[in-house]
Order: sequence, then structure tokens, then C-alpha cells
Amino acid sequence: MTVSQPVPMNLVPFVSVDDMMRLVLDIGVESVLVELAAYIEEDFRRWESFDKTPRVAAHSEEGVIELMPTSDGKAYGFKYVNGHPKNFQDGRQTVTAFGVLSDVDSGYPVLLTEMTILTALRTAATSALVAKYLVPEGARTMAMIGNGAQSEFQCLAFKAVCGIDTVRLYDIDPQATAKAARNLQASGLTVITCASGHDAVHGAEIVTTCTADKQYATILTDNMVGAGIHINAIGGDCPGKTELHKDILSRSKVFVEYPPQTRIEGEIQQMPADFPVTEIWQVITGQVPGRTDERQITLFDSVGFATEDFSALRYVRDKLQGTGFYQNLDLLADPDDPRDLFGMIERKSAALTAA
Amino acid sequence: MTVSQPVPMNLVPFVSVDDMMRLVLDIGVESVLVELAAYIEEDFRRWESFDKTPRVAAHSEEGVIELMPTSDGKAYGFKYVNGHPKNFQDGRQTVTAFGVLSDVDSGYPVLLTEMTILTALRTAATSALVAKYLVPEGARTMAMIGNGAQSEFQCLAFKAVCGIDTVRLYDIDPQATAKAARNLQASGLTVITCASGHDAVHGAEIVTTCTADKQYATILTDNMVGAGIHINAIGGDCPGKTELHKDILSRSKVFVEYPPQTRIEGEIQQMPADFPVTEIWQVITGQVPGRTDERQITLFDSVGFATEDFSALRYVRDKLQGTGFYQNLDLLADPDDPRDLFGMIERKSAALTAA
Repeated sequence: MTVSQPVPMNLVPFVSVDDMMRLVLDIGVESVLVELAAYIEEDFRRWESFDKTPRVAAHSEEGVIELMPTSDGKAYGFKYVNGHPKNFQDGRQTVTAFGVLSDVDSGYPVLLTEMTILTALRTAATSALVAKYLVPEGARTMAMIGNGAQSEFQCLAFKAVCGIDTVRLYDIDPQATAKAARNLQASGLTVITCASGHDAVHGAEIVTTCTADKQYATILTDNMVGAGIHINAIGGDCPGKTELHKDILSRSKVFVEYPPQTRIEGEIQQMPADFPVTEIWQVITGQVPGRTDERQITLFDSVGFATEDFSALRYVRDKLQGTGFYQNLDLLADPDDPRDLFGMIERKSAALTAA
Repeated sequence: MTVSQPVPMNLVPFVSVDDMMRLVLDIGVESVLVELAAYIEEDFRRWESFDKTPRVAAHSEEGVIELMPTSDGKAYGFKYVNGHPKNFQDGRQTVTAFGVLSDVDSGYPVLLTEMTILTALRTAATSALVAKYLVPEGARTMAMIGNGAQSEFQCLAFKAVCGIDTVRLYDIDPQATAKAARNLQASGLTVITCASGHDAVHGAEIVTTCTADKQYATILTDNMVGAGIHINAIGGDCPGKTELHKDILSRSKVFVEYPPQTRIEGEIQQMPADFPVTEIWQVITGQVPGRTDERQITLFDSVGFATEDFSALRYVRDKLQGTGFYQNLDLLADPDDPRDLFGMIERKSAALTAA
């Protein structure tokens, strides 16, 4: 009888940054974005089965470190993520992340993965998924304001999921715009670089804002926003950090992920606590309408929620099967007798002495 | 000019279970317990400088998965830990853990380490440290009730930190007691195996309870507890899980780590919300007295707190310097231009194609 040797219980598959790049390239970036959007959509459809809690944030002068846990009762996931706007001055990422997926029944982790790249992908996939339910019919042009690390992923996700064909790029730093334009030149998108935010929004049915300053900023002013557009507001995602003038919020129908978190972290932190919002999972399940009028301004006040990371962790776990894009990490102590942790150390000592 | 090559920013030192055993054996288990107790003491002395929050727990029928974050404003640490009493039936650990230490200014992790072994060590070191302030003078004998994975560490910590010379072991499972006795036979402790809890507490000035059932249990009944002893209650550490009869709590002076967490998770979950407790950091800093009377029963209602893990993470980071007991993990995306995450993937694609 041949029995395949199970992976020892102490080992946890680990996806490094290098392995994540290999996995993503193996599948194809646009395919990943489409497939991830489907996983995220699936989890939004069963929103009520998740344990939800606002993220646990440790704020400092320079930034924030957050833990974002959630569970569907079978699997448990959490992400560690930081946000440090000044990091790029030292050659560091503004946002880095890693995450873990665990089995609820045993509490044992089953996946440890980098999530800097994965977060960029899931954020873009979420934006595009939500936009699919909200953009005006026939939308083909997106203004992309803020051309940092997230921008190309947003452009490709909106192309792959929503079918846009043109992006209008703007950043206060022209080098960032040039970088994004260069990265997108072979994407199949028509790429237009713009000299101002006003210029960028011209003719765009979709406006995505994604800037990194940790402060109240006004990337979009009221006069820049015409009727019948969809605003995808990514950058306003922690207390004290917003991108839109509040007059825009008043004129828009606002959609959010998880109101208790968004009221603290999103654009709507500028608004009264009873400012009306629609939960996006209810639109996705068909319980409430999304866009109800061609001239309406729809606004996705996105802050990123733990279920989206959970979906991304599920996706990576599923996609890893049969690939070599991971290594097994000796993360969990696994003595022969689980009550004999001390004996495991003593036996190690004996083994080292014998060696 | 020779400049030592700094470790690339994307790499995070990782201490596997195997490396942790090597590190601990290299230092010596008792030395680790003494040094860890000193780190934990140091952090209790600056208790007020920590960001404190009750742990974030995800409970299920079979157990709990918890995240325990804290920060002193310079470093940030968190631990992932599960508690699944039935795990040992599948050959798994009841408790496994891993943790991360990060730099608050950049949000970048600087250490990822197994914490199953480390938690066992820090729990024992904390117990012994607290006992140092509370045990009656001349205490030399400890009853150790519950002889699972934590028990040997407790016995050695009380030997190394408090100077006990005798342990009286009892477990409902005689095999667990035999295992602990075997593991402690070369420890220098006089080890007495006992046939009942009543037998174990006989003549002991210190009683440590550490059992694993996730239920209200009564490991110690009121008639088992005489005057002038110190009770170190480890096992009552989550809602619905206690070990002591509440009459014992009423007769004792109760010391806790962090009241908001202990009232939910500790033995005192059985008591009214205003049941008087003393915070152990105040005893350690000398702000309030510990034991005030030889006949007093002191009781450390220990649930484990994030600062203790933080101390343990600090300790490991400090001890790793100059050793080979870690590997560098490619955990953080580190593009040449931090705003060019997408370009990093594209360059990877080009490199793979060229290869």
C-alpha cells in the first residue's frame, strides 16, 4: 500500500515576495485581478457569515501598523499592514504587508504569505469589482489621480474587470506619472498623462484617487466633479487622511465596505455619524440598488477590509496547489507527544551533543 | 573604503522552531528563564509607556485564535496564538504561537519568530517573576497541578528565579505526571509524584495550577488551600475556562496583569466586575505592597499579556545578534523605487524570460 507522505504538521507553506511575483506572472496579472475579484465577490455575497471587527491600529507620528483579522468560521485570516507615508524617502515602501490563513478547528496556520504585492492586487480587484456594480453604462475612461505604487494595478483591474480602454494619469510629482505611463505602455490601455487634476478628470466617467499624504487633503474639489460619474476613493483610509472635499460627499451616493470602520477611516470621517451610506455587500447580493440614475455621482469610499484580505489569502492558497511557488517553514513546534514540549528541547540537546 | 553590506531591507530575520531550540540550548534553559524574567520585569517597570489593549480573540467551538499587539512607541510587537484543548488528540499542540517585532517609525518587521517554545518560556518566567514579589519567605516547595506542556518550564523557572528545591506533581493523567517527572529528573529539583491534588498541595508554599480543559473546572477547592501560600493560577485564561473555586478567590489577595483582560479571561471572571485586584506592575514598581502578611493567600490570576510577549521578542532579537540561529526571509517587497511596485513585477517577468 502506498500512502503519500503528508506534510509534517509543523511546516507552514510560505510565499516570499519572489514566489508571489512568480505566481502572479505564471497566472498573468490581469487574470489574477479578474480571479481575485471573483473570490472577493464570493465573500461579499456571504458577508453575514464573517466575524467582522474594525482593524486594530497602532498609530504613531510617522504612520500606522494594523492587524486585520476575520473568520468565516472555517478559516481564519489576518493581515499585518503598515502605512508610513514618509517611508519612500528612505527607499522603503509606504505600505508593506504579510498575512496568515489558519484552520479554525485546530488554530494551526496553513499559509504565511507576503501581502505587499497581494494587497496591491486585492485593493485594485476590490475597486474594480465594486465599480462593476456602480459605473455609468458605457464608461471607458478613468482618471487616475495619484500615480504611486497602487496606480498601475488600479488601471489594469478596471481594464480587466470593467472594460475601460483609456486612463488619464495625474500626480503632483511628474516623475510618478512618467513611471506609471511607462509601466502601462504595453498594457493595451490608451494612456494620457495630464498636467493637473482638472485636466485628468476631463471626459472621465470614472475618477480614482489614490494619494499617500497622511493629512486632510483635497485632491478633488467640488467643481471638478460633474454629474454621472463614479468616484473610486482609495487614499482616504485612516483617521486624519482624506482626499475629497466634503461637498462632493454631500452630492454623492456613498458606498462603503464596513460602516464602523469607514466612519473612522474613510472620507466620511468628515461627515456626521449618521451620514447615509450603503453597504456594498448589499448591492452585490442584490438586496439594495447601486446606481439608480445616470446623472448620479456614485462614490466608493474604500478603506480596505479584512474580508478582502481573507479572499486574497484563500485565492493564494488555492492557486499554490501543485506549484513550486512556496517553501515550507518550520514555524510550529511539533513534538511527538504534544504535551511534551520540554522533552522536545531535551531531545534536541541530546541530538546536538551526539552530532 | 570597506563598508559592511547592510542586510537588504526586504529581508526579515526568522527564527524557526529548530533555531529557537538551538538558541535556548546555547544559552541554557534556566539562564533563558532568568534573563527573560529580567526583560519582563523591565517592561513591567515602564508599564505606563505601553499601548495596551485586550487581545483580539476569535472564538470557535473547538478553541480560540488570538492576536496580542502592543507597542512602547519605538517597537511594536504582536503574537498570534491559538488555544485548542482537543488538539492533542490529533497529535497537535494545544497552544502554538508565532510573533513579530517591528520598528514603529517605518512599520517594517525586524523579527519573525516561532513563539510556541518562547511562550512556554515567557509564561513560566512571568509566573516566577511575579512569585518573587509574593511568595512567603523561605518557600521551597511548589505543587504543580497539571503536568502538560507548560509544567516543566514552570518548575524550572521557580527553581531558577525563586529558589524552590522541591516540586510535587499531579495530573489527572498519570502518564503526564510520569513524563514531567522524567523530564525533571536531572534538573536538581526533588520531584515527588502525587496521586491527588490534595496530596500535591500538602506542605507546598506555592501552588501552580495549569490544566487545559476549556470549561469551568475546580482544580483547587477551598479546603485544599491553607493560609500563607501563594497560588499561581495559569490555566484559567479564557472566557468559560477557570480552575479555582470562587471561595478561594474571596479569601485571597488577587494580583493581575491587565484588569480589563483578566476580568474577561481570568479566574476573576467568576467574580463581580468590581472585585478588588492589584495590578502586578504596581507591586513591581513598589507603588503598592505585595504580600502584607505571612498568613495571607496571594493569588496571581495569570492570563498572559501582550507586554510579556513584547519582552520575549525583545529578548530574542537581542540574543540573536552574532549568532547563526535565524535565516533571512524575503518577506517584504523592496523595489528600487518604492512607488514602483508594478515595475518590480515587470522586471521580474523580463528576468524570468531572459533566464
